[in-house]
Amino acid sequence: MCESNAYVYRDGKEEFLMDNVILLEPRNNKLYLRSLLGEEKLFNGVVKEIKFMDHKIILQEKSEEFMGGPY
Amino acid sequence: MCESNAYVYRDGKEEFLMDNVILLEPRNNKLYLRSLLGEEKLFNGVVKEIKFMDHKIILQEKSEEFMGGPY
Repeated sequence: MCESNAYVYRDGKEEFLMDNVILLEPRNNKLYLRSLLGEEKLFNGVVKEIKFMDHKIILQEKSEEFMGGPY
Repeated sequence: MCESNAYVYRDGKEEFLMDNVILLEPRNNKLYLRSLLGEEKLFNGVVKEIKFMDHKIILQEKSEEFMGGPY
């Protein structure tokens, strides 16, 4: 099984959003997430980073105007 | 291990881009991918869909103007 957990990067911290994410898909300028158990979320933001080996999806809200970061 | 394979959706087909992707990250309006073996690519496009259980990252080039699809 390779589902991942989704977090929202906010104020320098990763806040938990959803576990066991099996699908991530842009929909109408938002991000649609679906979990193994069928939970669904529409997140108003963008992907910041996905670390597949850590099973981590890190998202960021659009209001913070993420442009790819300074790194 | 949970690395995934990346494909580019083009003309209704999925064309192979990179295997064993361990990191996906937007950088300067492109998508940076890194593989388990250290291969790196900067792809001028967006995420179309990520199916974690299938280990599939499906990308789409920007020129096709992906708006979230009709589905």
